[in-house]
Amino acid sequence: MLIKNVTVLTMNSNKDIIENGVVVFDDDIIIDIGEESIIKNYPNHEVIDGKEGILIPGFINAHTHCSMIAFRSLGDDVPNRLKRYLFPLEKMLVDKEIVALGSKYGICEMALAGVTTFADMYYFEDEVAKSTKEIGLRGILGETIVDFIAPDAKKPYEGLEYCNWFIDKWKDDNLIIPAVAPHAPYSSDTLHLQKAFYLAEEKDVPIIMHIAEMDYESEKYMNEYNLTPVQYLDSIGVLNSRMLGAHLIKVNDEDLEILKKREVGISHNIGANAKGAHGVAPAYKMYNMGLKLGLGTDGPMSGNTLDMFTQMGLVAKIHKLVNNDRTIFSADQILEMATIGGARALNLDKKIGSIEIGKKADLVLVETESINMQPIYDYYSVLVYSANSSNVSTVIVDGKIIVKDKALLTQDYRSLSNEFKKIKDRVMTIANTL
Amino acid sequence: MLIKNVTVLTMNSNKDIIENGVVVFDDDIIIDIGEESIIKNYPNHEVIDGKEGILIPGFINAHTHCSMIAFRSLGDDVPNRLKRYLFPLEKMLVDKEIVALGSKYGICEMALAGVTTFADMYYFEDEVAKSTKEIGLRGILGETIVDFIAPDAKKPYEGLEYCNWFIDKWKDDNLIIPAVAPHAPYSSDTLHLQKAFYLAEEKDVPIIMHIAEMDYESEKYMNEYNLTPVQYLDSIGVLNSRMLGAHLIKVNDEDLEILKKREVGISHNIGANAKGAHGVAPAYKMYNMGLKLGLGTDGPMSGNTLDMFTQMGLVAKIHKLVNNDRTIFSADQILEMATIGGARALNLDKKIGSIEIGKKADLVLVETESINMQPIYDYYSVLVYSANSSNVSTVIVDGKIIVKDKALLTQDYRSLSNEFKKIKDRVMTIANTL
Repeated sequence: MLIKNVTVLTMNSNKDIIENGVVVFDDDIIIDIGEESIIKNYPNHEVIDGKEGILIPGFINAHTHCSMIAFRSLGDDVPNRLKRYLFPLEKMLVDKEIVALGSKYGICEMALAGVTTFADMYYFEDEVAKSTKEIGLRGILGETIVDFIAPDAKKPYEGLEYCNWFIDKWKDDNLIIPAVAPHAPYSSDTLHLQKAFYLAEEKDVPIIMHIAEMDYESEKYMNEYNLTPVQYLDSIGVLNSRMLGAHLIKVNDEDLEILKKREVGISHNIGANAKGAHGVAPAYKMYNMGLKLGLGTDGPMSGNTLDMFTQMGLVAKIHKLVNNDRTIFSADQILEMATIGGARALNLDKKIGSIEIGKKADLVLVETESINMQPIYDYYSVLVYSANSSNVSTVIVDGKIIVKDKALLTQDYRSLSNEFKKIKDRVMTIANTL
Repeated sequence: MLIKNVTVLTMNSNKDIIENGVVVFDDDIIIDIGEESIIKNYPNHEVIDGKEGILIPGFINAHTHCSMIAFRSLGDDVPNRLKRYLFPLEKMLVDKEIVALGSKYGICEMALAGVTTFADMYYFEDEVAKSTKEIGLRGILGETIVDFIAPDAKKPYEGLEYCNWFIDKWKDDNLIIPAVAPHAPYSSDTLHLQKAFYLAEEKDVPIIMHIAEMDYESEKYMNEYNLTPVQYLDSIGVLNSRMLGAHLIKVNDEDLEILKKREVGISHNIGANAKGAHGVAPAYKMYNMGLKLGLGTDGPMSGNTLDMFTQMGLVAKIHKLVNNDRTIFSADQILEMATIGGARALNLDKKIGSIEIGKKADLVLVETESINMQPIYDYYSVLVYSANSSNVSTVIVDGKIIVKDKALLTQDYRSLSNEFKKIKDRVMTIANTL
């Protein structure tokens, strides 16, 4: 296939921009990129007219719990929300069916918003994997391990056994990368954090964990070991390049050096962090230190949206604000984090994250016809500051068209919406007891 | 006309919500509001099926310079932007034609996003008024007065003469409220600030001004008078209920008391303030003190969007973050500021800002069919945290349908986009010299 009549933001190391550009891919691989003149070399390729849109690498949502979309708009302003509201809610409501429904809906929403790869951690993660395959996205999917009885675990740490089974089941899939996901340092003991780490090592898969998000987390490790959460994790030997850490808000300069040395991937989740009043990770410092830094939405009960447009706008505004400097984090740096930066965090930057020959055809066309997309003096600024998810018109994952003319081809999300309406009363009744 | 099959968020003083509700209006006035059963009382009314959407009062954008959309995406990350970039750019580029084009486009964008009333200040404001009428919105429109030669002023303060003429021209219009708009305290001397104030008094129109936005502004008045900008303005007698102050970031508790006592209207412009690294106005304190507080986007070179969805999400996240409290500013309080709060700031709360019998039929239908609009456990949360401007389906201003099924009926904005493309090279050439 061949896409023409687009401005290509390659996000390669030069950040080359090709106006009136063309991208050619065979099956799942990009084989050529250039100006209009290269079209004649591909007389038999199917042609997609990009209609003067902006073609970018698929967005990478580096941290979410997409199934939680089943509870989006519940309890947004509740204090001490994780322990007082979310954990009990999940205990009473989360089952295999809810995860199947929620993950399908959440993945549909990501697809329509141009997210082609996402990293997820939740319960019943096998359901998330099936939904991901059904809709056709790439997923790095971690089953959660915690020290309490969870929706899919009758005893503490049972998630480790689930992981074992789940990883073997999905290990060789072309779109799914199964992962081990201890929830957080404070919700596992040292032994089980290490067990999770060794399982990931043994199976050669990623490990995903919330790190340095909560004040009580920092206090715990300071009290017990006189260490930060990052220093504690390093001291027990579980930080290396297969670790994807979400949040990393409460980190000092020494922590940043450890993250660099251990090549830890980072998902910066500004929207959820701000809404939860957790603080602002030093992402601009992380970026300038060359850490493996992507952006994530967090779960849709924490951040409410699953798209990268929302996050990009927030990254720009909040970091300029808290650093008291309107010149930092230029729009191209922010799009970088939302694409190739996320790929780096996931150790997938050889395969996805930019539009380059030999990489996977994960491509997103953003139309420029809607009123919010004009005028265009700077493509990056338009994407970061005025575009929204409704501007995504075509989405290609692994060489396959998933979204065309703003319609999702692989799933009927409205039938899923109707399922939400059926469970609304039950959910509200339980939520109102919390 | 009659709108049925909607959830009505009235934004009246009880914040009544009517599920499966009906709103009836004759000409420009709302005459009835109720449940489905009232439909039978209006057998001859034209019926609009709201398709289970959410009906809200039209959004009020309490501060913008909509014509600047002609330069959106230019120079977003430039240091000392107002004086080093914006003023010179405007001097070289802004003429009557650009204001006509930019204001039309900006007003189209507001209409499509459900903004039914906006407060604007710029040059050639007569062009903005004509655009507002053409598209059919309500505008509080202030001609700018400054102490330098401006795009439409051959000498300092010539804007005062323009105001005189402009106010007389538009004073009796049903949609336009002309206003006097001294740019800021620091860009007028005391005498001319007072002249502007007396002109507003004489003509009985609003006065619009940027107040307490810049650090250099605070420093100037502290150095010269040992006063804050608000205290200085109060000391020269120009603060009263006809004043609409934009920004009001650098204010202390004494300033807030003055703003309350003088009944000054406030536009809180969080997006532009954050992006410009100007700081965060104490809006939560202002809200709790009962100040006349609305939300604004600022000009689209500063904030890039003109819709209230973008602002509402930012207000929630940034105030929770900087106050270190996830429970403050509930979603209903934020929608309040974006509707009736803005009306209060503009002294129009008897006429617009809520869905109540006797008020103007300024109504916005937000559809709930798009993927980001489900599930709905809390209508306010959905609007504040996951909706965006593309979810607006029908917009009614003064009883007239302006937007239907997401299409603008009163203007073809794509022909305006094409005009932007024609001037792009000239604009870029000049911008690149700055």
